[in-house]
Amino acid sequence: MKSLSIRFGERIRELRKERGLSQEGFADLCGFDRTYISGIERGLRNPSLIAIGALAKALKVSVEELFSGL
Amino acid sequence: MKSLSIRFGERIRELRKERGLSQEGFADLCGFDRTYISGIERGLRNPSLIAIGALAKALKVSVEELFSGL
Repeated sequence: MKSLSIRFGERIRELRKERGLSQEGFADLCGFDRTYISGIERGLRNPSLIAIGALAKALKVSVEELFSGL
Repeated sequence: MKSLSIRFGERIRELRKERGLSQEGFADLCGFDRTYISGIERGLRNPSLIAIGALAKALKVSVEELFSGL
């Protein structure tokens, strides 16, 4: 099974694209750097609870929904 | 509204107690230090995605369930 980091990154990318956002535009919404978003989407970063909360807020989903089915 | 860190900590404490685990016993299951668990439960720590995955595994819930209703 893919690691949680990989599955989480795939979910973030999927939701970002559904919202028609570029990595740059999404990063701006979150207050993060584009390279950090890129790293998260590739499963290379290990975001903290607070960062995960910021990602969920920018995607307008609950943290529960962010992890739905992961 | 309480911060995500506080709500997350309360959930962890609730599930740990439901399982009849002490902080020490739960920490051992997770491979963490007891003081780290104590800090998470009080909302003073900012656990990473990988740490959150380890907490969920030790509590035998999905990450989605861990955040259910938070």
